[in-house]
Amino acid sequence: MNKNSSDIMALAPNNSNKRETVCIFGTGDFGRALGHKMIQSGYSVVFGSRSTQTSSLIPKDAEVLSHTEAAQKAAIIIIAIQRQHYNFLTPLAEILHGKVLVDISNNLKINQYPESNAEYLAQLVPSAKVVKAFNTVSAWALQSGTLDASRQVFVCGDDMEAKQMVMDIVRALGLTPLDKGSLLAAQEIENYPLQLFPMWKFPILLSLGLVTFFFFYSLIRDVIYPYVYEKKDFSFFIAISIPNRICPILALTLLALVYLPGVLAAIIQLYRGTKYRRFPDWLDKWMLCRKQLGLVALAFASLHVLYTLVIPIRSFVRWRISSRTISQVLNNQTEPLNTTNAWLSDSYLSLGILGFFLFVLLGITSLPSVSNNVNWREFRFVQSKLGYLTLILCTAHTLVYGGNRFLSPSSYRWYLPNAYMLSLIAPCIVLVVKFVLIFPCLDKPLTQIRQGWERKPQYSE
Amino acid sequence: MNKNSSDIMALAPNNSNKRETVCIFGTGDFGRALGHKMIQSGYSVVFGSRSTQTSSLIPKDAEVLSHTEAAQKAAIIIIAIQRQHYNFLTPLAEILHGKVLVDISNNLKINQYPESNAEYLAQLVPSAKVVKAFNTVSAWALQSGTLDASRQVFVCGDDMEAKQMVMDIVRALGLTPLDKGSLLAAQEIENYPLQLFPMWKFPILLSLGLVTFFFFYSLIRDVIYPYVYEKKDFSFFIAISIPNRICPILALTLLALVYLPGVLAAIIQLYRGTKYRRFPDWLDKWMLCRKQLGLVALAFASLHVLYTLVIPIRSFVRWRISSRTISQVLNNQTEPLNTTNAWLSDSYLSLGILGFFLFVLLGITSLPSVSNNVNWREFRFVQSKLGYLTLILCTAHTLVYGGNRFLSPSSYRWYLPNAYMLSLIAPCIVLVVKFVLIFPCLDKPLTQIRQGWERKPQYSE
Amino acid sequence: MNKNSSDIMALAPNNSNKRETVCIFGTGDFGRALGHKMIQSGYSVVFGSRSTQTSSLIPKDAEVLSHTEAAQKAAIIIIAIQRQHYNFLTPLAEILHGKVLVDISNNLKINQYPESNAEYLAQLVPSAKVVKAFNTVSAWALQSGTLDASRQVFVCGDDMEAKQMVMDIVRALGLTPLDKGSLLAAQEIENYPLQLFPMWKFPILLSLGLVTFFFFYSLIRDVIYPYVYEKKDFSFFIAISIPNRICPILALTLLALVYLPGVLAAIIQLYRGTKYRRFPDWLDKWMLCRKQLGLVALAFASLHVLYTLVIPIRSFVRWRISSRTISQVLNNQTEPLNTTNAWLSDSYLSLGILGFFLFVLLGITSLPSVSNNVNWREFRFVQSKLGYLTLILCTAHTLVYGGNRFLSPSSYRWYLPNAYMLSLIAPCIVLVVKFVLIFPCLDKPLTQIRQGWERKPQYSE
Repeated sequence: MNKNSSDIMALAPNNSNKRETVCIFGTGDFGRALGHKMIQSGYSVVFGSRSTQTSSLIPKDAEVLSHTEAAQKAAIIIIAIQRQHYNFLTPLAEILHGKVLVDISNNLKINQYPESNAEYLAQLVPSAKVVKAFNTVSAWALQSGTLDASRQVFVCGDDMEAKQMVMDIVRALGLTPLDKGSLLAAQEIENYPLQLFPMWKFPILLSLGLVTFFFFYSLIRDVIYPYVYEKKDFSFFIAISIPNRICPILALTLLALVYLPGVLAAIIQLYRGTKYRRFPDWLDKWMLCRKQLGLVALAFASLHVLYTLVIPIRSFVRWRISSRTISQVLNNQTEPLNTTNAWLSDSYLSLGILGFFLFVLLGITSLPSVSNNVNWREFRFVQSKLGYLTLILCTAHTLVYGGNRFLSPSSYRWYLPNAYMLSLIAPCIVLVVKFVLIFPCLDKPLTQIRQGWERKPQYSE
Repeated sequence: MNKNSSDIMALAPNNSNKRETVCIFGTGDFGRALGHKMIQSGYSVVFGSRSTQTSSLIPKDAEVLSHTEAAQKAAIIIIAIQRQHYNFLTPLAEILHGKVLVDISNNLKINQYPESNAEYLAQLVPSAKVVKAFNTVSAWALQSGTLDASRQVFVCGDDMEAKQMVMDIVRALGLTPLDKGSLLAAQEIENYPLQLFPMWKFPILLSLGLVTFFFFYSLIRDVIYPYVYEKKDFSFFIAISIPNRICPILALTLLALVYLPGVLAAIIQLYRGTKYRRFPDWLDKWMLCRKQLGLVALAFASLHVLYTLVIPIRSFVRWRISSRTISQVLNNQTEPLNTTNAWLSDSYLSLGILGFFLFVLLGITSLPSVSNNVNWREFRFVQSKLGYLTLILCTAHTLVYGGNRFLSPSSYRWYLPNAYMLSLIAPCIVLVVKFVLIFPCLDKPLTQIRQGWERKPQYSE
Repeated sequence: MNKNSSDIMALAPNNSNKRETVCIFGTGDFGRALGHKMIQSGYSVVFGSRSTQTSSLIPKDAEVLSHTEAAQKAAIIIIAIQRQHYNFLTPLAEILHGKVLVDISNNLKINQYPESNAEYLAQLVPSAKVVKAFNTVSAWALQSGTLDASRQVFVCGDDMEAKQMVMDIVRALGLTPLDKGSLLAAQEIENYPLQLFPMWKFPILLSLGLVTFFFFYSLIRDVIYPYVYEKKDFSFFIAISIPNRICPILALTLLALVYLPGVLAAIIQLYRGTKYRRFPDWLDKWMLCRKQLGLVALAFASLHVLYTLVIPIRSFVRWRISSRTISQVLNNQTEPLNTTNAWLSDSYLSLGILGFFLFVLLGITSLPSVSNNVNWREFRFVQSKLGYLTLILCTAHTLVYGGNRFLSPSSYRWYLPNAYMLSLIAPCIVLVVKFVLIFPCLDKPLTQIRQGWERKPQYSE
C-alpha cells in the first residue's frame, strides 16, 4: 500500500545497536507517548512506576520497574509526573545523585508558582543535574508523528554536559533543540506553551477599540443623520459601506503607527545624543510589536480591497447607477465625460492598487522563511524604504480620494468631518517628521549616533 | 564581478587540513556529482571503478583506483551503483568487513523489489554497516549548488556510529540530515523521491469527482433546461457561470469535510469511553489529509472570489443590466430602492468576504514556516476556533445567498434543487453535531477522555 | 508580567558550569554586543583593549585586559577591529601562535580590497588559525534578541577543528552556522551583507526597460493618436488604462522568458550531444535568475488582476456604459444578446482567472518553506508541468482577448499594432519550440543526454 512519509518514523528499529537506556518516571499519557517515540528512535526505555505491573497502554518493548530500580538503569531520568507529586523524589535523592533529571512539566496558568517547576525540582534534588525540555511538544504530536506545529524543543539547564545529552535525544527524535541558557530560563519556557499570541494582544486590542469608535462614528454620520434629516433607511450600510469605511481608516492608521515609534526613537536619540540609554518602556514594547501592527494593518487593507471590489455587484449600487441613468434619460440630458473626475477617480484607484501591492510585498517578506533568506541590508531596504513608499502611496490614495471634499461644508454632518479625514492625522505626522529627519543637518548626527561612534561626551563615563 | 552567493560553495579548499577520505564505488553521474561536492567540502575522495583510467568527467582532485584498492583507503564507501550490479560486492566481502557502506540508490517504481536496496545490500555484505542516505538529493542540485527543493537528507541504518559518520558528511555538504531510525525505514526512504503528492491524491480525486458531478448537474439546470423550455442559448455559461457555481459548492463541502472526521472521532471516543483504541482505518487516513482537504477547499474558494469579482466586466452581465434599465425606461416605471434586497445582497457579500478572509488566514498559518513559529495552543486556536468560525461564516453566506429561494417552486427545475442547496448538507451536519458536542454533558467527559485520565473501566487491562 | 518569548534568551546564566573563555579584541559596538550575547549564553568573556579601564558600556561580567593578557586567557580570539588596524597584531604573533582568530569584519564596498579581510589577517598572523564568521549578523540583532532577518552565520576557514569550535559558539548563541568551506570563501562571505538583491537586478532592470518602452508605445497609440485625430483628451488613461495594458504584457513576456532558457539549453544539449559542456555564460546567468523572473512576472500579473477588477468602479467606465445605454434608449433600439461576444468575453476572463490561479500556486511553491517540504519529483512537476500549463493558459487568455481584432485594420494606428500582440511573440516561440521538443524523436535522445548515459563519442575522452 502507498504509505505516507510520516510513517517512516513509525518503524521499530532492529534490536542490535540500541542507543543508551533512558528512564521515565511516570506512566501517564505524555510519559508513554515519549517512551513510545524513544523506543522507535532506538533507545531502551525503562519506566519507573509505583505499580510495576505492565499495562497494555505501555509500549511493549519497555520495562516497568520500581522507581529505584528504574533509576539505576539509566543516566537520564525523564520526570513525567505533575509538580504536586515531585516531593516523592526526596527519598530517592541518593540514587538520583549525579543523574540528569529532565523536567517536562507544564502548568495550567502563566507564572502559576513563584519558581519554575524545573527550579523547584533542582531544589528538591540538589545533587542531580536538572534540564528543562520537551514541555512545548504535545503527546498527540509525538504519537501521530505529524508535527504540524513547531518541532522546536526549548532546552535549558545549568550543566552543559547534561544539556548536551538531552539535546542529542531531542535531535534523535527528529525534533530541533534550542538552547535557552541556564535553568533561570525555565520559567519562560514553562510559560511559552500557555501563551496565546502575546505579541498580538496590543495590536488587536488597539484595532478593536478603533473599530468600535469608527463604527459608531460612521453609524451616526451615514445612517442616523440621513434617517433623521431625510427619513431615508440606509441601515443596510452596516453590512458593507461602513466596514469599507472602517477598514481603510484602520489600515492607514495602523501602518502609520508602525513607523511612528521609529521616528520617536530617532528624536529621542538626537535629543540625548547617544544610543546607549534605554528607551522608555512603552516605546520599547511598541517597537517590538511593529511587525504585528503592520500585519493587522495589512489584514484591514485586504478587507478594504475585497469590500471595494464587490461594490459593483451590490444590489444598492446597481439600483443607484440604473436610476441615475434613467433620470438622465427622462430629463433628456446626457452628461459629457468629466475629465477631471476621470483623472481623480483613476488616480486614487491606481495609488491604492500600488500601495496595496507594496503592502502585500512587505507582508510576504515578513514570512519567516522569506526573511531568513535575505541579508540585513536587504531586509532593512524592504522594511524601511518600501515601507515608507507604501505609507506615502496609501496616504496619497486617501488624499486624492478626498479630492476637494475637504473644504466643502456639505461633507460635515453635525460638525463631524468625514471619517477618512481622521485617518490622515497619524500618517501625515509620521511623514512630516520623517521628511524633517532626512535633512542632512539631522540625518548626519543621527547616523553617527546609531553607529555608536559619536555621542555627547557627558554620557561616556 | 558580482558573484552569486550560491557560488560561495563552489570554491576548492586549501589542501592542508583535509577531512577524512571517502571512497565512492562507481563513476556514474551521481557518483561524480557527489564526489565533486565532497572535494569542495574538504574531503579526500577516491573512486573505485572497473577501469582505473581517469576520465575528464571525474573531479580532477580525486583518485581513481580499483574497487579493492579504493575500499582500503577509506572507512566510508558510497555505493553509487545500480542495484542490479550489487552482487559484484560479494567477492569483496573481506575488504568491506566493518566498513560503512552508504546506499544512495533509488528505484524506478514504488516498492519495486520485495526488500529495499539498502537491506539487499546488507544481506549481500553482512559484515559491513549499511547506511541509507542521499537518495533524495538530485545530481543536478549537487552540481549547480542551487538547492531549491529540499535540503533534507533522510538517513537510516542499524549501526548508530556509522549513521553518525554519514550524518556528519551530510552536514558538511550543507545539507540537513534527518535520522529515520533503523534500516527497516529504507523502503520508505527509497519510495519517498518517487512519490507525487501522496497526501493530495484523495482530496484531488474527491474534488475531481465532485466537480464532474456538479458540472453536469449545473449544465442540466442552467443550460439544457432553458434551451429545452425557452429556446435560449446559454452555452457560454460553461465559461464562467457554471465554474462559479461549482467552486463555492466544492469550497464549502470540502471545508466541512475537514471538520467532519474530528466530529466523528469525538463521537467514537465518547461511545467507546477511551482514546486508546485505534480509529477505523478510513478515519485515520481521512484525518491525516485534513490539511490538504482544507487547502484544496481554499483553492476553490479563491477561484470563486475571482469568478465573482469579474461578474461586472462580463459582456453578458453588462448587456443584462443595460437591457433592464432600458426596459424600465421604456415602461416608464422607476423601481424604488428595495431595502430588503439591499440588506440581503450586502449581507451575503459581507459574510462571504469575512469567511474568505479567515479562510486565507487559515491557509497562511498552515505554511510550514508560520506554523513552526506558533506553539500548540496557538496552532489549535487558529485551526479549531478560527476554522469553525470560517465554516459558520461560509455556511451563513450560502444561506443568506439563498434567501427565500429555498421555498420558491420556481427554483426547482426538473425537480432538481439549486446546486448550492446540496452544498449546505455537509456543513450543516458538522455544525449541528459540533453544537451538540459543546453541551457540558458531552464536552466534559470528552475532555477527560482526551486527557487520557478517564475511561470506562472495561478497557483498562 | 507577561514577557515575550524572545526575552528567554536575555537571562544571565548561573555562574557555575560556565562554557570556555572567549577573548574579544576591540571594545567597539559590535564587539560589545557579541560579548554581551556570549555572556548570556554561558561563556566567560575577556576583552583585549588598548585602554584597560572598564567603560559602562562594556558588559559588566566581562574583564578588560591588555591585548597580550586577554589573548593568553582564551583559545579563541574574536577580532572586532577594523581591517585598517589589523597590523597591530603583528607584534603579538608569538602569543597568537596556534590560537583561533575569528575575523568578523565587513567592508563598505563589494570587493573593496584585493584579498578578503580574513585572508589578510591570515597573512599577518600565519601561525594562527583564521576563521571567518559572524559578519552577516548585525549588532542591533544581537542586542535586541529579535532576529527577524537571517539567523544564518556563514563560517569558513582552513582548519577544520578551529571551524568546528567557532560553529559550536554560533550554535550556542542560538544562530545557525553554515560551513562555506576554506578561507577562499571569505571574499564571498564578506561581500554577502553588502549585496542588495543581486539575483533580482537583471529581472528588475529588464522589466523597467520593457515598462518604459510599452508606456510610450501605449501613450502614442491610446492618448496621442486620439488627441491628434479626434481631439479627445484621454490623458487620464495614464492612471489605469495604460498600466493595465503594460502589466499583462510584462507578465506574459517575463513568464515566457522563464521557460525560454530551458528550451535553449535543450537545443544546445541536443546539438552538442552531451550535457557535460558548460552553457554559454549568459545562458547560465539567465537560468539562475529564472525564479526571480517568474516572481516579477507574478507581480505584474497581480497588478493586472487588481487593475482589471477596479474597471467597473472607474468613473470613466461608468460614464461610458451609462452613455451607451442612453444612446440605445434615445435611438429606440435594444441590442439583443450577442452570444459570440458573451462566449469570447467569458472565455478570456475564465482563461485569465485559471492562468492567474496557477501562477499564484507556482509562486507559493517557490516559498522556501514550501519547497523544502516537497521532493524533487514534486518540485519539478509543479515548476515544469504546472508552469507550462500556466504559460499556455495565459497565452490563450491573450489570444482570445484579441479575438478577431488581429486582422482588423482599425486596430493598427500609425501602423502600430495593438501592444498585446507584441506580448505574444515570446510565449508563442517558447510554446512552439517546446511542442517540437516533445516529439519522441527529439525527446528520447534529450532524456538520455540528461541522464548522463549517452553522448556523442567525440566528447568522452
